[in-house]
Amino acid sequence: MKILLIGASGTIGQAVAKALATDHEVIAANYSGEGFKVDIGNPESIRALLARVGKVDAIVSTAGLANFSPLSEFTDADYQLALNNKLMGQINLMRLGREYLNQDGSVTLTSGVLSREPMPGSGVISMANGALESYVKASALELDAIRFNVVAPVFVKETMAMMGMDTEGGLSADDTAKAYLAAVTGAMHGQTLDAPDYV
Amino acid sequence: MKILLIGASGTIGQAVAKALATDHEVIAANYSGEGFKVDIGNPESIRALLARVGKVDAIVSTAGLANFSPLSEFTDADYQLALNNKLMGQINLMRLGREYLNQDGSVTLTSGVLSREPMPGSGVISMANGALESYVKASALELDAIRFNVVAPVFVKETMAMMGMDTEGGLSADDTAKAYLAAVTGAMHGQTLDAPDYV
Repeated sequence: MKILLIGASGTIGQAVAKALATDHEVIAANYSGEGFKVDIGNPESIRALLARVGKVDAIVSTAGLANFSPLSEFTDADYQLALNNKLMGQINLMRLGREYLNQDGSVTLTSGVLSREPMPGSGVISMANGALESYVKASALELDAIRFNVVAPVFVKETMAMMGMDTEGGLSADDTAKAYLAAVTGAMHGQTLDAPDYV
Repeated sequence: MKILLIGASGTIGQAVAKALATDHEVIAANYSGEGFKVDIGNPESIRALLARVGKVDAIVSTAGLANFSPLSEFTDADYQLALNNKLMGQINLMRLGREYLNQDGSVTLTSGVLSREPMPGSGVISMANGALESYVKASALELDAIRFNVVAPVFVKETMAMMGMDTEGGLSADDTAKAYLAAVTGAMHGQTLDAPDYV
């Protein structure tokens, strides 16, 4: 398969790229770093990326910006970043990308376990993740030419270690990548894939 | 209790007003209709309403706009209406309203079962509802001076009848109102109250 991976330079993205590259051709895209440039917060940038890349068999997003912050310190801009980038940016990858997908193609987005298991500071991230999971489930009812799923990672051990956190309860980036591989190569549709279930 | 009810003129809102009015003072607010005027899609309008009403014991929202439409026909404006009105409009009632709440006050918003049980055409509504439910659960972890919940109604029998639908599976507006009464008078915090559970 030819797979467009947006967010390929991130911690999860790199692991997903490696996992997919064993059997597939991966086209990397990022806000910064190697590969095609794209700003998912800007629909015109998504359109330009898709036009350059052309037809693919799968679109995978490990991208999306949203801030952690104490609830009382979230600004209007924090809400808008989560809604415009992590939420609508990823939704627009499906809306604009579906016509670039070959027969039996798929779109796989990224939410996170914070939708259902929040923590202090996760307010707007939980909001965006919950929106993504419900939207994917609903939209899939009307998408019969492509499969549409979302992977919900837990904290990534490498990130936790870098932040000086206990890595207990986390999942390595390589293990997290297995859920994306399952979403791309499997038959699921309209599902939230909880990453720990695919290790 | 003194309760500010936003969306009081709607089908659910009228039933909630009636249920609350038995033991409490209800201050009605609406986009149109009787009572105070407010446009929840505009934070300045929310601020003006709160300043006029002053301190209350509870804020209840049965308001929020979002469109049903086939997935392929949703426009950018449909997504923005759901995000700006049904989602951020209601979230802003909490963000701006919390300082107008008396000790042990509460905020109760409205999502809907379509977050978890979607139907064709519910894409952006499911998105907004899922966002609300995850946001309330997350935010409640950091709100200790007020309680914060969301009621998830199912289809209202009166609306279904009006639309010529079979009312099987629906709940009357009066029965739906019981979940709001429970949220306002109960002890729950950070919960999604599925309306059928409170009949």
